[in-house]
Amino acid sequence: MSLTIYNVLSRDKEVFKPIHKELVTMYVCGPTVYDNSHLGHAKTYVSFDVVVRWLRYSGYKVRYVQNITDVGHLLDDGEDRILKGARRERVEPMEIVERYMRSYFEDMDALGVTRPDISPRASAHIPEQIEMIQELLAKGFAYEVNGSVYYSVERFQEYGKLSGRRIEEMEAGKRVAVRDEKRHPMDFALWIKAPENHVLQWPSPWGRGYPGWHIECSAMSTKYLGANFDIHGGGVDNIFPHNECEIAQSEAANGVPFANYWMLTGTLLVNGVKMSKSLGNFVTIKEALRQYKPEALRLFILSGLYRSPADYSAAALDAATKGAERINIAAQRVRDALHLTALNGPGNAADDATSGRLVDLIDQYRMRFTSAMNDDFNAPLALSALFDMSKDINAAIDDGTASQIVLEHAAAVYSELGGDVLGIVRAGKAAADAGSAERERRLIQMLIDMRLEARKAKDYARADAIRNQLAEIGILLEDGPKGTTYRLRD
Amino acid sequence: MSLTIYNVLSRDKEVFKPIHKELVTMYVCGPTVYDNSHLGHAKTYVSFDVVVRWLRYSGYKVRYVQNITDVGHLLDDGEDRILKGARRERVEPMEIVERYMRSYFEDMDALGVTRPDISPRASAHIPEQIEMIQELLAKGFAYEVNGSVYYSVERFQEYGKLSGRRIEEMEAGKRVAVRDEKRHPMDFALWIKAPENHVLQWPSPWGRGYPGWHIECSAMSTKYLGANFDIHGGGVDNIFPHNECEIAQSEAANGVPFANYWMLTGTLLVNGVKMSKSLGNFVTIKEALRQYKPEALRLFILSGLYRSPADYSAAALDAATKGAERINIAAQRVRDALHLTALNGPGNAADDATSGRLVDLIDQYRMRFTSAMNDDFNAPLALSALFDMSKDINAAIDDGTASQIVLEHAAAVYSELGGDVLGIVRAGKAAADAGSAERERRLIQMLIDMRLEARKAKDYARADAIRNQLAEIGILLEDGPKGTTYRLRD
Repeated sequence: MSLTIYNVLSRDKEVFKPIHKELVTMYVCGPTVYDNSHLGHAKTYVSFDVVVRWLRYSGYKVRYVQNITDVGHLLDDGEDRILKGARRERVEPMEIVERYMRSYFEDMDALGVTRPDISPRASAHIPEQIEMIQELLAKGFAYEVNGSVYYSVERFQEYGKLSGRRIEEMEAGKRVAVRDEKRHPMDFALWIKAPENHVLQWPSPWGRGYPGWHIECSAMSTKYLGANFDIHGGGVDNIFPHNECEIAQSEAANGVPFANYWMLTGTLLVNGVKMSKSLGNFVTIKEALRQYKPEALRLFILSGLYRSPADYSAAALDAATKGAERINIAAQRVRDALHLTALNGPGNAADDATSGRLVDLIDQYRMRFTSAMNDDFNAPLALSALFDMSKDINAAIDDGTASQIVLEHAAAVYSELGGDVLGIVRAGKAAADAGSAERERRLIQMLIDMRLEARKAKDYARADAIRNQLAEIGILLEDGPKGTTYRLRD
Repeated sequence: MSLTIYNVLSRDKEVFKPIHKELVTMYVCGPTVYDNSHLGHAKTYVSFDVVVRWLRYSGYKVRYVQNITDVGHLLDDGEDRILKGARRERVEPMEIVERYMRSYFEDMDALGVTRPDISPRASAHIPEQIEMIQELLAKGFAYEVNGSVYYSVERFQEYGKLSGRRIEEMEAGKRVAVRDEKRHPMDFALWIKAPENHVLQWPSPWGRGYPGWHIECSAMSTKYLGANFDIHGGGVDNIFPHNECEIAQSEAANGVPFANYWMLTGTLLVNGVKMSKSLGNFVTIKEALRQYKPEALRLFILSGLYRSPADYSAAALDAATKGAERINIAAQRVRDALHLTALNGPGNAADDATSGRLVDLIDQYRMRFTSAMNDDFNAPLALSALFDMSKDINAAIDDGTASQIVLEHAAAVYSELGGDVLGIVRAGKAAADAGSAERERRLIQMLIDMRLEARKAKDYARADAIRNQLAEIGILLEDGPKGTTYRLRD
């Protein structure tokens, strides 16, 4: 069964053929680290996380590169985001970058998003960007004016091939600010001359300045994945100008095709409008995680196609919470039942025919899941296989027909497909690790109270038994003048 | 009470006078990220962590910069460490860097080491390094030969002022490899011409190459702290050539003094020999954390002066474990007693005179701690104040003389000095958060068994009470054909 990917470049589903035999090279545009990330970011990065997880599950080695934009690029009001953040918090720009890069990875870790293999930072690749700009100048795709360098879009025949825009249709002065220095209004900056006191600036052959926004992705993807690589991902909002400019830069400078497959995620909407920092209609990932479990947020995101827009609402997240719980409870029941089978033997074992039928059924769910994922990573369809399987396995446990082999098959599906691939089924161990101190405290208090009752009833044997059993668990009771307290033995 | 710092530069304790009124600027040489860090690294970074924590506790704002060396520098056998790591693990050099940078911060987080405000990477500051080299060339402190650039030590009058070495005494060809290109055997590389297939290389005015090891610290400290800053830290093993070269580079290029205070940590020894990767006598931080608690490792490190060597041994770590436990148990007893006082009222309250005497005593311990830390961060002496106080407060709790005000004073000392400053007293909340799933599971099982017993004894009221109380805590019992299981309600 082969994997197909909807390639934005061809606007068609294509069979995926990686350049190297077993290594998939993949680049995804990362965040600009100037503030906490919101659920719109989560949609993009959870989606690509599942892409990477599925490729790895399918046996590929993946080199996943995702950049960190820390040089900043202009906001609509003409102010650099990083510098704006630095002024807001009265610190050095690089402290802003450290703070929000850390915050970003914290959020991603909390969401169970696999870390990229390389997270290159724009500020860390100034020489590489300068070299690529020099190459573009040498090949006549760029020109210098007053210490800034621009890309000449008219020189690149295929400009617009990703977004489907045509240069002729792009009128000057409407959506794009005209700079007098440019030869064509659509030309974009590769290198920008720094104003006198600009904090982020570097020396270059054209004087002190800083790179344009687009060149970092071309330079860093070339450095770590090669001029031609397999998959380029990002949010669809950046298809123009950012992605279009990346193609123009890379293909002109390197003389070979850039990414073979373009995958762009749909936007997260709030009442039909894009969730974004600038519109103020956002929910940060940290806020969301205070209210919802990571599995619920992932399931919400995976309930739609990655390339479709999704609507954020409390109702949708509540539904995702219920869905995640339904799958996790079923998975837990399977683990518990397996555990009991191991402890107590098979019990009233089902007959072989029923058992075989159920194993086949689970295999079919696994196939359904696999077909869905191989069809352009159709996570919602894959999810439906897990939901349907949960219904069947719950019923089999209820009526006692879930034999050990059936339970083992089901447990493997939950762990591999629900856990490793989609990241929505909590591992048995992870779930067990999440011991709650509050719950523990209340359990111990409950036992202390029971011991007190036993003593009041002069049932000293029972009182002592409670004390001794607690000591075995490592909980030492201490009777003092003010009541009984406890401490944990080391 | 003013802070004194032993300044390696003057070989004397000096009163600390920061350059800026309230901001302390501090740079510490960070790790080369090519493998997991070991306890030798922990000694250095925990020591400086306590320096930063003490400065902040004293009311200073601190900008703490610690670099990440990811360009690699030569090993004794002439091979680049990063490239060696990459070959060992069959991945790209930058994947090695990502992996071990993450591992380093994981270890530091686990040890409770505060993150630096800025963690600049050498590879991210190639232009800054090139600029500084250009400055050194322009001022005649450096010379180019065949695409490499060397620093001319004879041109810098004060070369050797930190380590106390004199150029005349440094003989060629003995401990230092002679390169024919150098004018003087002690000259060191600022920029190294890259061999044809060298993976880490950048363009420069002298052709493709990579920076020498020392220049990164000069360039990055200048960028983030200014040419002249307050404190430069590191391990004493790098005093020569690394720190000496930093001074020579920075002072020659910038024309002002480099760091005002040099603080160097003593080496961690194993049977009298330095713990190091190359000698193979190391224990990684991850290994150590599997056996010992973070507080125990910190206490082991803080039991000696930061600038003295320390001897690693299992006995020393066991002693530190006991010590950390002694302090933490006392701190927990104080918190518990305060809690009970809050719940039950003052109980058999001590008289005011006793109470006043105890409060004074605790204040004296606080003073002892403060004096010790202000005397060149004498953590072992500060620790002894906490140990002595623990003895007294334990006795006061035992004999019922610890009134609420006494307990409050003691709790503040544990939390502020033991917790915030030294990082060895677990916070009440952190300790409470560390609920153990295994313990919880056993507690629940104990209650399930008690319920079963009650049912066998036909004491259904008690059996149901257990079930209901558990449900209140969020633990739902499910009786099935194979026994009673439970699940956690959401």
